Amino acid sequence: MQPTSRTQIRRAPQRGDYDRAVIHHILDEALVCHVGFIADGQPFVIPTAYGRLEDQLYIHGSPASRMLQSLQTHIDVCVTVTLLDGLVLARSAYHHSMNYRSVVLFGTATTVTDPAEKWQALKAFTDHVVPQRWSEVRPPNPQELQGTLVLALPLTEASAKIRTGPPLDDEDDYQLPVWAGVLPLQLTVNPPRRDPRLPAEITIPNHIQNYTRPTGP
Amino acid sequence: MQPTSRTQIRRAPQRGDYDRAVIHHILDEALVCHVGFIADGQPFVIPTAYGRLEDQLYIHGSPASRMLQSLQTHIDVCVTVTLLDGLVLARSAYHHSMNYRSVVLFGTATTVTDPAEKWQALKAFTDHVVPQRWSEVRPPNPQELQGTLVLALPLTEASAKIRTGPPLDDEDDYQLPVWAGVLPLQLTVNPPRRDPRLPAEITIPNHIQNYTRPTGP
Repeated sequence: MQPTSRTQIRRAPQRGDYDRAVIHHILDEALVCHVGFIADGQPFVIPTAYGRLEDQLYIHGSPASRMLQSLQTHIDVCVTVTLLDGLVLARSAYHHSMNYRSVVLFGTATTVTDPAEKWQALKAFTDHVVPQRWSEVRPPNPQELQGTLVLALPLTEASAKIRTGPPLDDEDDYQLPVWAGVLPLQLTVNPPRRDPRLPAEITIPNHIQNYTRPTGP
Repeated sequence: MQPTSRTQIRRAPQRGDYDRAVIHHILDEALVCHVGFIADGQPFVIPTAYGRLEDQLYIHGSPASRMLQSLQTHIDVCVTVTLLDGLVLARSAYHHSMNYRSVVLFGTATTVTDPAEKWQALKAFTDHVVPQRWSEVRPPNPQELQGTLVLALPLTEASAKIRTGPPLDDEDDYQLPVWAGVLPLQLTVNPPRRDPRLPAEITIPNHIQNYTRPTGP
């Protein structure tokens, strides 16, 4: 997409990426976004889960949430998603860095009122966290649907920023006897913990037993 | 610390924690914070590394950074740090959740001008990412020090929010034949990748070879 004055990467512009597929990939891999908004003249940054369908990012929660109440008034929102891929250890303290992939999205949210879109958005949340999960759980009942506020943010003004690769040291520093390289990081899944109230005869589905997150740039 | 109107947890107040040691622990375990600020009336949320020393959170970067330039004008800042500990799979879509530990910090930043404090803050950044790293790398030279802006945020108005444990389903749903439990998540380190320009005779220090992040609540 076209960079705007808000999404144009100014620092380290070579790390900027405005490709829609790249942005979607980062949003689909990450699990949590950080939602920035202004309430009473004060910035707030709140972590929350989300889902994506095509060019819409959905967030949801209780109608009593301060964040959602604020966003419903069509204020400017900035949503940021960050994946940490590695620690970049240079020979100098100054050139230490991190490998990461992030997306910054600007826009205003609208409340999803159409029941079919709301249903699809809730399905997208659930399947974003665990693919196939929606089809095996009890879906929302009317009270739960009413008690869930879903907001949509269009993915029209967004940019990705990506750093990959080894450290970049000053030329003189390459002769220093200091180990340099990258410590790759990955979000991994430890063995599932059964709910203590789960009957013994209920076995774990394969897609949960073998759950992994997509990884890497 | 005492909750304020900004840090008081309103949604799910039982998850709130204002204990300084809990807040410090989360800040020390995480690697990236999300900095929220207002520029030109617009909220921005930017991911960045940080360090902590006692009751100060330090962020740093280029003096040309829009974020740091904005923060230098003593505007309100909200810094949020989030650790994702697990995916909480309930029997109903509605009660799906995540286990997490987050800190939200409000305040205004001040520029660190004292050379000794600036040095200690830069050491704190480096050692926050890789303990002991500062002592083995080339420290900043005068030009690098001048080219690095360090800002301090006091840890005086902050709260933690924590969810742990299994899903909490509606009582009627416990009879459903649906697997329920937690998929624990952890940030793990894959084998270090040597810088391609690293001479073969430089071996990896033990503390990097055996690097792990502290884990768990």
